[in-house]
Amino acid sequence: MAITPRAQDYSQWYNDIVQNADLAENSSVRWCMVIKPYGFGIRENIQKILDVMFKNTGHTNAYFPLFIPKSFLSKEADHVEHFAKECAIVTHYRLKLDDNKKLIVDPEAKLDEELIVRPTSETIIWDSYKRWINSYRDLPILINQRANIVRREMRTRIFLRTTEFLWQEWHTAHATYEEAETEARKMHRVYNDFATNFMAISPVLGPKPEHDKFAGALTTYAVEPMMQDYKALQAGTSHNLGQNFGKVFDVKFTNDKNELDYVRWTSRWVSTRLIWGLIMSHSDDKWLVLPPALAPLHVIIVPIFKNKEELKQIKEYLNPLTKKCNSERLKFGSEYFDDQIRITYKIDEDDKKSMWRKFNEWEMKWVPLRIAVWPRDIANGNVELYRRDTGEKEIITIEEAGQKIAPILHEIQINLFEKNKKFREDNTYYVDNYDEFKEKIQKWFVMAHRDWSTETALQIQNETKATIRCHPFEEFINPKYIWEWKCIITGNNSKWVVLFAKSY
Amino acid sequence: MAITPRAQDYSQWYNDIVQNADLAENSSVRWCMVIKPYGFGIRENIQKILDVMFKNTGHTNAYFPLFIPKSFLSKEADHVEHFAKECAIVTHYRLKLDDNKKLIVDPEAKLDEELIVRPTSETIIWDSYKRWINSYRDLPILINQRANIVRREMRTRIFLRTTEFLWQEWHTAHATYEEAETEARKMHRVYNDFATNFMAISPVLGPKPEHDKFAGALTTYAVEPMMQDYKALQAGTSHNLGQNFGKVFDVKFTNDKNELDYVRWTSRWVSTRLIWGLIMSHSDDKWLVLPPALAPLHVIIVPIFKNKEELKQIKEYLNPLTKKCNSERLKFGSEYFDDQIRITYKIDEDDKKSMWRKFNEWEMKWVPLRIAVWPRDIANGNVELYRRDTGEKEIITIEEAGQKIAPILHEIQINLFEKNKKFREDNTYYVDNYDEFKEKIQKWFVMAHRDWSTETALQIQNETKATIRCHPFEEFINPKYIWEWKCIITGNNSKWVVLFAKSY
Repeated sequence: MAITPRAQDYSQWYNDIVQNADLAENSSVRWCMVIKPYGFGIRENIQKILDVMFKNTGHTNAYFPLFIPKSFLSKEADHVEHFAKECAIVTHYRLKLDDNKKLIVDPEAKLDEELIVRPTSETIIWDSYKRWINSYRDLPILINQRANIVRREMRTRIFLRTTEFLWQEWHTAHATYEEAETEARKMHRVYNDFATNFMAISPVLGPKPEHDKFAGALTTYAVEPMMQDYKALQAGTSHNLGQNFGKVFDVKFTNDKNELDYVRWTSRWVSTRLIWGLIMSHSDDKWLVLPPALAPLHVIIVPIFKNKEELKQIKEYLNPLTKKCNSERLKFGSEYFDDQIRITYKIDEDDKKSMWRKFNEWEMKWVPLRIAVWPRDIANGNVELYRRDTGEKEIITIEEAGQKIAPILHEIQINLFEKNKKFREDNTYYVDNYDEFKEKIQKWFVMAHRDWSTETALQIQNETKATIRCHPFEEFINPKYIWEWKCIITGNNSKWVVLFAKSY
Repeated sequence: MAITPRAQDYSQWYNDIVQNADLAENSSVRWCMVIKPYGFGIRENIQKILDVMFKNTGHTNAYFPLFIPKSFLSKEADHVEHFAKECAIVTHYRLKLDDNKKLIVDPEAKLDEELIVRPTSETIIWDSYKRWINSYRDLPILINQRANIVRREMRTRIFLRTTEFLWQEWHTAHATYEEAETEARKMHRVYNDFATNFMAISPVLGPKPEHDKFAGALTTYAVEPMMQDYKALQAGTSHNLGQNFGKVFDVKFTNDKNELDYVRWTSRWVSTRLIWGLIMSHSDDKWLVLPPALAPLHVIIVPIFKNKEELKQIKEYLNPLTKKCNSERLKFGSEYFDDQIRITYKIDEDDKKSMWRKFNEWEMKWVPLRIAVWPRDIANGNVELYRRDTGEKEIITIEEAGQKIAPILHEIQINLFEKNKKFREDNTYYVDNYDEFKEKIQKWFVMAHRDWSTETALQIQNETKATIRCHPFEEFINPKYIWEWKCIITGNNSKWVVLFAKSY
């Protein structure tokens, strides 16, 4: 299938990419998606890597119920307003066949209290924490949950917005403000480590402004990469929520001075939305592009054979190469991930598809390396190595091919990151007046000063449709462009430069 | 908390074990459980190992919707009868605040068609397969899904039977009977590999009798270990379901002779129930016992310190030991798992708990190895190594301790398996007459002949409450006890010896 160019129709381009690479599809259940094997492979790699990072920072996984009793949501009107208005509500618990053998909901099997399929798990998790926490000795609790989440969405887009989606949610409980703040900041850095070293994207990091923090949060730290259409994606936020939920759910503990105090809470989430961000960051008009660190398959090996005997010979010939793949590991520069990644390969033995069909299918999935072997190669000791990112094809010895695999995969990963970083930097403008701001913000990221009042922020937002993405940390600011610390609108003093952008 | 002896009350003993090891608990949502971090750690290890095994046998993971439209279930009356009668039914999609600010279900937000929270996923998965399969070139499809499942259960027991539970379900689609049968048999062997090498249990394997196969199955292969109370647990079944679902869902394909044919199906499941089986297999009156291959933590290191300076010194002293743990891998004798398992350790730095409390907590979780370090050990170069299974404690050099960790973990694993195997063999009786059968079957596994008629099987079942667990493969039969091939009841000829037992 031909891919619609981005310039023509971004949405259609995205759908074409997803379909051609066979990542996911809409299901027969309205507003829900089916994540197909290749798409789920990306999700699994994300999960495995984050899991090691979380365990290395002292977190554990646990699992809480899918259902939230309605009364739990009543405790937090704000919460309902944000998450639980459009949701899936279980009211009955039995089907039966009626007199005409038609399957109906048994009207007598009505639940005493309706159950909501979790639109987020704060309420049910804090219900457990309340039982678990009595003293400062029980703190901190550092738990992550992987779960399916349901919020009714009618304008769906695969991976970005569907009624059911998959996510991971961290809800940590702490005795002191300092400990909670340290946790929120550290996990913000972990997200950034994941984004840069594995997703190969280069976000801007910093705290969110006062008026755009998560409901009830003391501080919210944002991770804001630039997508290909120059828009910002909120790719992960980390919140220090203070004693907000501790008070709502009345979770008190005895502190080390033997006084009763409310528990502190931090939280964050990442969802299948990251896959959307990944596709939007690297893919081009021709195909999906995936960083090797998250690609479900690194090497596709295509033997070209006429019969079983030839296939057998080729497979024997390939033995040292696959052995080399099995013994090698990929290692990306990460502070929090100390494990190694296996090189995944597949020998496509299917005798029902032509060589060209195979080449095409694996191209669409953007497998970084392809090795093709003809029977004649056995005598010569050669294979054909095709490198997906540059399109280079070379005939080399099977030993050389084996030695090149890991270095090329590392190189592609680095190149994708550098390209993404340069793209963001090249498309970020530093401006010191509102006229230029209004021009540049139509398309790009803009760094500019504001006077830190919510009014000014909302004025800019109303007039330009751009929002403050964050107050960037120093390392994300090019010092030579920071002329003077004055608001572009009021001329009032500014504390720090601000990142503005349009977003999804 | 003291643990109730098994002889006194098996259910209470099980609950005490789960509670003392802090594995899981009942939640505020009726009939649902909370899987706590240590319990979830077991589940994660099960999942990781099975995942490698499945990928090594050509399978991939995917994800299908949580909800099943009611009309999907109507297609299969049998299916509803088995799985979907007691279920969770979503009828509405919005909450709202009424005039008194009370949270209610918006009566106007009623779904056109009710959605059932999946009690199993055949119908929704085959709905996708129908779209994906046109030709024999699209086959086989070898997919596994990890999912949460909901079937209303009112007599709950943690891990064994709860309304929501976690499982993995394989639904494979094939062009031919032979290929489907090969898949069903191979995956049966994979289950057994997992049970013996990782769960350290020794089941009996074989096909189920005609009358006890899964609804619609051509063949069902069973994995039947003996629990501590001499009962059999159905720990995994693998089904060749022929064209049953292909016909129900009208999934046809063009075969290699260019004829239309119905697709063949195989399926199997394993759930959090395996954790129940694990606890029931190895634990004793004193505590939980876990095989190291599935234990969430292998080594607990307890530094004993008075202040931060002492802790810092001890941690520096421990560096070579933790490095050794990081670099070593555990390797168990498995045909399908070619990966290696990291040694997990934790330094319990908590300064709010006494040494004795720490010792006790980790004992209850049955961490296989404990290393305690006092400040005085630093000068001597020693540590105290405590081995959980034998209770042996020794003061050895820190180097020796590092070298001993992996071998001891392997040894404990083997010992648990050998113990379980001997237990089953010692408690399995071979009998050739019905009187002895009726006596032995009250408590133990019994191998005996039957005439292969369903009537005889049901007669035995009615009179003794025992069922045929499987027709064991030859390797599970002690040849010296197979006197003659005659039914214990009718004296008619028998084709093969049969395993009878009571079960859950």
